Amino acid sequence: MSLVENLKWRYATKKMNGETVPQDKVDYILEAARLAPSSSGLQPYRIFVISNKELLKKIQPIAFDQAQITDGSHLLVWAAWDGYSHNSISEVFEKTTAERGIPSNAMDDYKTRLWGIYEPLGKEWHATHAAKQAYISFGLAIAAAAEQKVDATPMEGFDNKALDEVLNLTEQGLKSVVILPLGYREENSDWLVNLKKYRTPKEEFITEIK
Amino acid sequence: MSLVENLKWRYATKKMNGETVPQDKVDYILEAARLAPSSSGLQPYRIFVISNKELLKKIQPIAFDQAQITDGSHLLVWAAWDGYSHNSISEVFEKTTAERGIPSNAMDDYKTRLWGIYEPLGKEWHATHAAKQAYISFGLAIAAAAEQKVDATPMEGFDNKALDEVLNLTEQGLKSVVILPLGYREENSDWLVNLKKYRTPKEEFITEIK
Repeated sequence: MSLVENLKWRYATKKMNGETVPQDKVDYILEAARLAPSSSGLQPYRIFVISNKELLKKIQPIAFDQAQITDGSHLLVWAAWDGYSHNSISEVFEKTTAERGIPSNAMDDYKTRLWGIYEPLGKEWHATHAAKQAYISFGLAIAAAAEQKVDATPMEGFDNKALDEVLNLTEQGLKSVVILPLGYREENSDWLVNLKKYRTPKEEFITEIK
Repeated sequence: MSLVENLKWRYATKKMNGETVPQDKVDYILEAARLAPSSSGLQPYRIFVISNKELLKKIQPIAFDQAQITDGSHLLVWAAWDGYSHNSISEVFEKTTAERGIPSNAMDDYKTRLWGIYEPLGKEWHATHAAKQAYISFGLAIAAAAEQKVDATPMEGFDNKALDEVLNLTEQGLKSVVILPLGYREENSDWLVNLKKYRTPKEEFITEIK
């Protein structure tokens, strides 16, 4: 199935059946998420994969008690850097040049220019910018899950600060952004499964300037 | 090829060869972008597809003169709503219920709750939230382009206000967010094409809590 067909197949699953998603499928979804492009290749976020039942039960009430958190087998959490620093940018560029087998100073000019732009924008702007990058990865994980015929429910509805606390994100310089339970749809009792997907019509959504 | 293979194939193309991407491929990429999930299904953004050469030449200088803007055949521009309103939310829910053939008031409670959350957050928060949703669609368009073996260069580096002006976005209640030139790589003169893709190693990028 093509990407477009997979995107038509998927929906924000409301009721999952408790079945466990096999590890190789979870790994595949994470690999798509890891390959996502990001601004200047910084990948300013990390992913937490939670399958520990006790922890999932603890997270559920801070996510409006949504059932998919515990009816799914894995919960992916995107946590973005709370800011950029000269150090964090340098580290990525050092690893990039090493991986490419080019001189370690090959990206120095770019790094200086980038930090010159980022530094004055301040930490709040940084955190928002990093969070936006995480959404690209989030989108690709959703597509990868659909390709694997794994159901997933994109969620922003949770108490970010409470989740940061449960996962000790603040001390890691991270802030939770979005979460994605993975599992399998319970076709008989999911109220959304048979409702038609609505998207803004093409004519309204797209403007072509030829 | 699978999504993961496609993501390995793609890269942020630096030099395009001027060839035109066929309309059916552009349409496919746009369809993937349109099918992207968004918070509460609001799809708070629109896409502009520019293939007009004069307009592309006008946009190039406001995007740091990046060559892909004119060497690519199409430029996609994601423009997010500058804010949410009770009206804009109502309109989406009316169309959703109509499409699903359910009573037009079926989503009223949800709408009231949602607006109750959104209204006090203010217009700046709204615009950022809408922009984040656009990044999901942006990610899916990048994946769709790779699937079609169309090259694309994700770009944030442009003067948003100047682009808003050129496309008259402000008067449409929109703000430019990200842009994506589409075209074909010029393998002989693209400095990035043969450099290895760097991504944060799995062990560092992912934390599993079992």
